[in-house]
Amino acid sequence: MESRHRGAFVVVDASGKIVRCAGDPAMPVYPRSAVKPLQAIPLIETGAADKFGLTNKELALACASHKGEPAHVEAVNAWLARIGLSPSALACGVQAPRTPDAAKRAILAGIPVTAAYHNCSGKHTGFLAACVACGDNPSGYIDAGHPAQKRVTQALAEMTGCDLSAVPVARDGCGIPTYSVPLQSLATGMARLADPSKLPEARADTAKRLLAAMAAEPFYVNGTGGFTTEVMAAVPSARVKGGAEGVYAASLPELGLGVALKIDAGAARAAECAAAHILRRLGCFGAAQEQRLQAFLSPVIKTDAGRDAGAIRPTAVLALSVAP
Amino acid sequence: MESRHRGAFVVVDASGKIVRCAGDPAMPVYPRSAVKPLQAIPLIETGAADKFGLTNKELALACASHKGEPAHVEAVNAWLARIGLSPSALACGVQAPRTPDAAKRAILAGIPVTAAYHNCSGKHTGFLAACVACGDNPSGYIDAGHPAQKRVTQALAEMTGCDLSAVPVARDGCGIPTYSVPLQSLATGMARLADPSKLPEARADTAKRLLAAMAAEPFYVNGTGGFTTEVMAAVPSARVKGGAEGVYAASLPELGLGVALKIDAGAARAAECAAAHILRRLGCFGAAQEQRLQAFLSPVIKTDAGRDAGAIRPTAVLALSVAP
Repeated sequence: MESRHRGAFVVVDASGKIVRCAGDPAMPVYPRSAVKPLQAIPLIETGAADKFGLTNKELALACASHKGEPAHVEAVNAWLARIGLSPSALACGVQAPRTPDAAKRAILAGIPVTAAYHNCSGKHTGFLAACVACGDNPSGYIDAGHPAQKRVTQALAEMTGCDLSAVPVARDGCGIPTYSVPLQSLATGMARLADPSKLPEARADTAKRLLAAMAAEPFYVNGTGGFTTEVMAAVPSARVKGGAEGVYAASLPELGLGVALKIDAGAARAAECAAAHILRRLGCFGAAQEQRLQAFLSPVIKTDAGRDAGAIRPTAVLALSVAP
Repeated sequence: MESRHRGAFVVVDASGKIVRCAGDPAMPVYPRSAVKPLQAIPLIETGAADKFGLTNKELALACASHKGEPAHVEAVNAWLARIGLSPSALACGVQAPRTPDAAKRAILAGIPVTAAYHNCSGKHTGFLAACVACGDNPSGYIDAGHPAQKRVTQALAEMTGCDLSAVPVARDGCGIPTYSVPLQSLATGMARLADPSKLPEARADTAKRLLAAMAAEPFYVNGTGGFTTEVMAAVPSARVKGGAEGVYAASLPELGLGVALKIDAGAARAAECAAAHILRRLGCFGAAQEQRLQAFLSPVIKTDAGRDAGAIRPTAVLALSVAP
């Protein structure tokens, strides 16, 4: 045993009732990018998605933490052009591409990396599209007082059931507000996406449309080799989304459940392994899917020369098999 | 509060007596690269360092986790040539350069990255130099049964006071054995480097020579902007060395103390902040040095657009000031 990751997870239904949990379900957590599917709600409900004829690809990008691969960047640039804007309108900052191939390609091309490469550029383009559709001046669209963020905050509050004016708020890596909510509330928001039967009709339609887009375009929600892409490609009934600092959230429409998990020290490697095992315990994986997702369920650590050196293993609370 | 890092540290004198600690000093830990200064002992004691006229630069590289910057790679290549070998003799595997500048330069140059770029290439060249000096066939020099690793294991056992045949052994990222030892034993090994007064004379000379090389060439022990480089450049009396998975070790000759720390979940950001605060508590930093090392003592987290978003803060056990 070398390193240890602690954390908490909770699985709830759309009423917020706990189905399974480990650790403290009331633990406050900044959901970070794990709530992007909820943050994308106003993109549809302002009418922007219809006005600009957005397809599953753009809706998936609005829910995405992508890797800045060429296809991601091209799609964001094309979407920005369609709403009359350019990458300079994005306030998320600049990130270099997050796959070795994409990084190498950008360096060799000698072209400057723009904000369109940022993992949140699709979400931000969604915010801007809603601004354009509503006639809001996009300037300052990342600030809490701007109509763009007010819409997002309202949708988050409605879906999680939290009074977001009463919780700590911080600035996410891309500049927008991120609200500290109980882990159970984050899971509830995801459960309501999964089972929108008690939501108003328009919100229920939005939920279905966003989850359908994520399922249809997993590459645009994350990118090559990413946990979210690989899990959604293998298990079309699961919608998962990761966030910075070891957060994962999932909407499981077939089960009508939502999942939220947080790794205390924020390691993605632990969050991915834990998320995979929670989905497995919930019966989301068949044998073929379990095989396909071995790299996340039983990650092998190799030496730099490629010899086996160790493994990441779930503790009993996660490893417990659902099947007999 | 977003993420939490737990861990343990211990400060001992050369007899192994605990001066300060938090957490369990008996906690078993794989020291990884934090013991490189101890693993370099045979390079001197086999006579290889003298035979090949090694300077502080090569001795620093033997103790290094460097970043694969051009100066590191050139120095390793030159040293390999001096012992009649090439990078193909290195069994550590290949790593891309670890600074954005060096990575970009390697891509633009279009030259293949060799094992000389690996952070452990200096340590491995040291092993090879000892093999050449001793007339050992270098083939398989990373395996536990090879004379090169037997020499290293013996030096580690003598310095830490551990029976390494009785502890778990794993394969480090560079392929050599890494032994699980109590945190206190790791600290004891570093304390005996710092205060070699009770060591045999030849070993005491080796300890002084290795610590002098690290102090003289901090860039070659780590690289641009690295914690080890920055701390040793600011505080010549401290010798620090990090290892994978949140380990740090330090030799403090002026105090005659050794330090070892392990962050449970392995995060370097936490290990660096903790190491900086332990050194501060031990009185290693003057006001100017504290100022110079603010980026490690009080790391600021920025958004990707450069706005303040948060900070990494030590808990009370680390933050407690030494001065009144």
